[in-house]
Amino acid sequence: MKTRACVLYGKEDVRIETREIGDVGPKQVRVRIGAGGLCGSDIHYFRDGGIGTIQVSEPIILGHEVAGTVEAVGGEVTNVKPGSRVALCPSLPCGHCRFCQIGQQQHCLDMQFFGSAMRKPHCNGGFRDEIIVEDFQCEPVGDIGLDEAACAEPLAVGLHAINNAGSVFGKRVLVMGAGPIGALLVGAAKLAGAEEIVAVDLADAPLSAAIKMGAMTTVNALAEPDRLARRYSGDKGYFDVGFECTGAGVALGNMFPVVKPRGVIVAVGVSSGAHIPFNALVGKEIHLAGTHRFHAEYPIAARMIAERRIDVRPIISATLPMDRIRDAFDVVRDRSLQMKVQLSFAT
Amino acid sequence: MKTRACVLYGKEDVRIETREIGDVGPKQVRVRIGAGGLCGSDIHYFRDGGIGTIQVSEPIILGHEVAGTVEAVGGEVTNVKPGSRVALCPSLPCGHCRFCQIGQQQHCLDMQFFGSAMRKPHCNGGFRDEIIVEDFQCEPVGDIGLDEAACAEPLAVGLHAINNAGSVFGKRVLVMGAGPIGALLVGAAKLAGAEEIVAVDLADAPLSAAIKMGAMTTVNALAEPDRLARRYSGDKGYFDVGFECTGAGVALGNMFPVVKPRGVIVAVGVSSGAHIPFNALVGKEIHLAGTHRFHAEYPIAARMIAERRIDVRPIISATLPMDRIRDAFDVVRDRSLQMKVQLSFAT
Amino acid sequence: MKTRACVLYGKEDVRIETREIGDVGPKQVRVRIGAGGLCGSDIHYFRDGGIGTIQVSEPIILGHEVAGTVEAVGGEVTNVKPGSRVALCPSLPCGHCRFCQIGQQQHCLDMQFFGSAMRKPHCNGGFRDEIIVEDFQCEPVGDIGLDEAACAEPLAVGLHAINNAGSVFGKRVLVMGAGPIGALLVGAAKLAGAEEIVAVDLADAPLSAAIKMGAMTTVNALAEPDRLARRYSGDKGYFDVGFECTGAGVALGNMFPVVKPRGVIVAVGVSSGAHIPFNALVGKEIHLAGTHRFHAEYPIAARMIAERRIDVRPIISATLPMDRIRDAFDVVRDRSLQMKVQLSFAT
Amino acid sequence: MKTRACVLYGKEDVRIETREIGDVGPKQVRVRIGAGGLCGSDIHYFRDGGIGTIQVSEPIILGHEVAGTVEAVGGEVTNVKPGSRVALCPSLPCGHCRFCQIGQQQHCLDMQFFGSAMRKPHCNGGFRDEIIVEDFQCEPVGDIGLDEAACAEPLAVGLHAINNAGSVFGKRVLVMGAGPIGALLVGAAKLAGAEEIVAVDLADAPLSAAIKMGAMTTVNALAEPDRLARRYSGDKGYFDVGFECTGAGVALGNMFPVVKPRGVIVAVGVSSGAHIPFNALVGKEIHLAGTHRFHAEYPIAARMIAERRIDVRPIISATLPMDRIRDAFDVVRDRSLQMKVQLSFAT
Repeated sequence: MKTRACVLYGKEDVRIETREIGDVGPKQVRVRIGAGGLCGSDIHYFRDGGIGTIQVSEPIILGHEVAGTVEAVGGEVTNVKPGSRVALCPSLPCGHCRFCQIGQQQHCLDMQFFGSAMRKPHCNGGFRDEIIVEDFQCEPVGDIGLDEAACAEPLAVGLHAINNAGSVFGKRVLVMGAGPIGALLVGAAKLAGAEEIVAVDLADAPLSAAIKMGAMTTVNALAEPDRLARRYSGDKGYFDVGFECTGAGVALGNMFPVVKPRGVIVAVGVSSGAHIPFNALVGKEIHLAGTHRFHAEYPIAARMIAERRIDVRPIISATLPMDRIRDAFDVVRDRSLQMKVQLSFAT
Repeated sequence: MKTRACVLYGKEDVRIETREIGDVGPKQVRVRIGAGGLCGSDIHYFRDGGIGTIQVSEPIILGHEVAGTVEAVGGEVTNVKPGSRVALCPSLPCGHCRFCQIGQQQHCLDMQFFGSAMRKPHCNGGFRDEIIVEDFQCEPVGDIGLDEAACAEPLAVGLHAINNAGSVFGKRVLVMGAGPIGALLVGAAKLAGAEEIVAVDLADAPLSAAIKMGAMTTVNALAEPDRLARRYSGDKGYFDVGFECTGAGVALGNMFPVVKPRGVIVAVGVSSGAHIPFNALVGKEIHLAGTHRFHAEYPIAARMIAERRIDVRPIISATLPMDRIRDAFDVVRDRSLQMKVQLSFAT
Repeated sequence: MKTRACVLYGKEDVRIETREIGDVGPKQVRVRIGAGGLCGSDIHYFRDGGIGTIQVSEPIILGHEVAGTVEAVGGEVTNVKPGSRVALCPSLPCGHCRFCQIGQQQHCLDMQFFGSAMRKPHCNGGFRDEIIVEDFQCEPVGDIGLDEAACAEPLAVGLHAINNAGSVFGKRVLVMGAGPIGALLVGAAKLAGAEEIVAVDLADAPLSAAIKMGAMTTVNALAEPDRLARRYSGDKGYFDVGFECTGAGVALGNMFPVVKPRGVIVAVGVSSGAHIPFNALVGKEIHLAGTHRFHAEYPIAARMIAERRIDVRPIISATLPMDRIRDAFDVVRDRSLQMKVQLSFAT
Repeated sequence: MKTRACVLYGKEDVRIETREIGDVGPKQVRVRIGAGGLCGSDIHYFRDGGIGTIQVSEPIILGHEVAGTVEAVGGEVTNVKPGSRVALCPSLPCGHCRFCQIGQQQHCLDMQFFGSAMRKPHCNGGFRDEIIVEDFQCEPVGDIGLDEAACAEPLAVGLHAINNAGSVFGKRVLVMGAGPIGALLVGAAKLAGAEEIVAVDLADAPLSAAIKMGAMTTVNALAEPDRLARRYSGDKGYFDVGFECTGAGVALGNMFPVVKPRGVIVAVGVSSGAHIPFNALVGKEIHLAGTHRFHAEYPIAARMIAERRIDVRPIISATLPMDRIRDAFDVVRDRSLQMKVQLSFAT
């Protein structure tokens, strides 16, 4: 059996190719992909041929934010059946290393992750019409759109970030950067009962999406660069928790004056080159916590979306058929208009 | 009644003066100071006239690491009596602000702290023959030397740093910088049951003190700059917890490759200008936590020293009479020989 | 100036009396009470003359769930002004004892709590037309009804219970007992993003209120005594967190089979005489945590109600004028109809 | 190849039999057992034919506290070699169930645990001359006695109990019951830097062992039944953490008056029939936490013993050859003399 797939050969070289898919094992599932979201790493792979030390050195099928419809199941599969609509968890940890043994599978020493060039041979992803996965990767999502279901992965990233912050219930939350991850984090913080959510971005489209996802206040830091500090830095700071989702060092630095003593800043983006104001970090005992992917959060994210307890539709801004993936990489550049750009498959 | 006191007028201008001390209130205690340790902030005040934005702008009696003998007590004092040997807690939080209300007195919005130029008027310190304090500032220390008792303050800083790390019991601990704070942290981590303690410094004298305080391994990063990374960076890192006590950005940066995923780095020193490797902080979900002074830890530190469960004597490297305070500021410069330099009083 | 007040002299002996109220101090506020809720302790005081070892031994003005309108403020008051509608925090911790010093004011060794017979002389409460309070006891609530505002106190109890559980975001929650506290806990758990909330009671009226507050499923344990265990005890249990709000030992015991390993059971009610299944508590490492009152949660509860992020109206089942307080104690007996019964004042 | 083994057929029916042992797989290790400790469950199996609902229904080789010397290793084994002295971890979790997936292997739904009758077929244990185990079950212990090494399992139970308490560093600890588990807990709490450790028992021999393990104070509750309450119940309680190791309800109940508000009581023993004073549990917000076995703690326990950071020798009170296992079950009855009774093998 064959499938079309989006294969990246290197910088700006993505091709639609036909690939053989094998047989469905007893605990495996064949899924017809319906939707797949472009993530920052896909974009970096396409534009730059890699991210930092991770380089695309051989052809790789892209995509780790995918959802589809079950076509066939192996004899021992019980959690889904043909026709089930499912979000697909992209991570396959080894289960044996010292991190898997303590419930920290996101740090697995031998992780296989859809569409990731981190290991060699690269791990193929989900931008394809058909795929065979393990049964435990399938999370049923009921009747919602597969475009929504494909947002389970970035939402899981947001849930894991919140878990790294401790709790946001009854707390004041700052979200720097209201792109897809930031806006989903706003939605998750809202669902988690944050008392106040302030979203900051340089463009109005993401801020408008953030409002739809639940932000009470937005700040356009391009239009009003001093507003955040002016309003929230009194008495050693205002926010209990901040999420840095821009990857820009200056944004991270701007969080320290407005986060309270013993507050938490979760670094979701990689702020290379940031100068941290250490007198504030030390003097206010701020906890700066990195967050990486997710583990137990994926099925929870899928259910939150399936039940529309978080409605992710405001963040899906464009959908193109898979054979227009190059166009999709162009479209997503325009942050004044675009949030999550998705591909559709298998039509 | 009068007392001699070490008064700093500005950069390199410290004078021994006579000051009036008032009457002992009903809940107050008059203490004859025996020993006082020079801390990094005292040294910065003397050499530079301040630290960063905190500037000495009026005469201030220095000193916040002091211990002495009770001479007189007010009518309502019950915890000590004349003759009691006591360590003196240097902090007087307001008790009313929003931080005092939630047990975070170290972030008090109106803190009075011995010998600190942070507020105006400056708060006078304990480098003097006689002082009047509140009863709750006095922690009895039994029969140990007052030089040891005067180490309760920096030890409390170390205990608070450990509390910010969560727990070190059964864990592998890295201490960067084995000066007085680092060496006391080694002693505290040892008492707290760390499985392994590695201390790093650029000089051999501190490393030798660290060994006496309980470090199992030492690394001279000047002699062997690559050893730490070579030995401890495999499989995503070795240490569960690291304490950065140097204030040097390069030392902080060197911790990230050798700390495990989900490990904690506690910033005790203020590493101005540090470039943090954000791909490691985010990818390994490292928690970087600032630590500032202490609150509930002071009496615990005093008891640990009083019972010699932590023997602080290896870190006291020189003692000069108070009228030689200028010489003391010279002596302490030589990190190849000196750790904690103390003044003696009231002889 | 004078005020009417509900004074309890002993078992079933409550009288409406006139009391003098003093002058408003510089940091004090005079409030015209609008609404006051009857709590379990009021009911026990009235019916039994006390609760356990706490006995009403002198006349006491009842009431600790009250809200009103500011009539006058002292010269130094800034947080409210005449006309402000406020919820009144009933607790006045001493601020000095060892528990106040570490942010655990609910365990204050010298607590003054409205309408509590715990200390002698008893502390008078808020069932009265007029009261003078400290400024920091006043939480502005905007335009909502004072009956709603008077629910801030029991909601704060619920928030504190949730904080004792850690976090309920994305978790499965069981609430045993859907009276006022249980139903408010349901509302709080809903706001805090619980994935699933199951409420259990012996009567349908509370279960119907629980549905309105956000429960997804209800179980009438009288009608279906085995349903909870049958449905939720497989694979070592289903719920991450359980709240015991009945005070009935059998209810507490029934939670152990359906709570997961390492799950938390928060005891809100006092289940005197309960037999805990220790093989489950130990074998599943269940954490059974007591919860007592609140501290930092009161202003948060007031704001949640003021903004109707939790709409408490479904739990207010009857309101009687203060001079009918005896009738109110009768009305509240009927659990098949009643949830929170309130008094109205100052008409 | 054959081995002698201690096989329990039912109540008081233990036999020395010869059993075939198979071949060493590529990742397996053949170990010549040196020492094995009798645990409470072994004793219950022998005396009562089971514990509660767990009944010995088929012949089972007893023993889960064992250590020995490696005789042969499979081709892929790297962590040990012939001649290595090793403590043997008795637990083999499935690695796939929902608890194994989140690092809670002690709650594995398909656990295989040496010498446990919990599952059918029963899982054979380590009271035998020779055994084949997985490589990851072997923890090298250097040169210490195998009798000491065989204490790694009960020490791991103690470490897990401490982890369930949070941290004991600088805290006041109460240990109820100073039998082998209680005395090891004392040793572990001492190593973890507890400020004060008070041990309580009904017999002097365990209390004397507790002193050797690090207790500062002991209370013989038979001789002085009121001493604990009299000395430690003022101002709402004295201890931060308590460990209940007796399994006696009365002992558990006696802890509540002397544990501080927000303190933790860890239930190590199963106190069937205990009446918990719920007014104290609720009013003081005490956390009562069950603890069950261990997971990540086993290798840490083995290293603590191997390096004699905890010297377990004071708790080993008698050693008998394996063919005298019946006598061993008699000897261990005398709590006035005995602590840990061990068997020796393979001589």
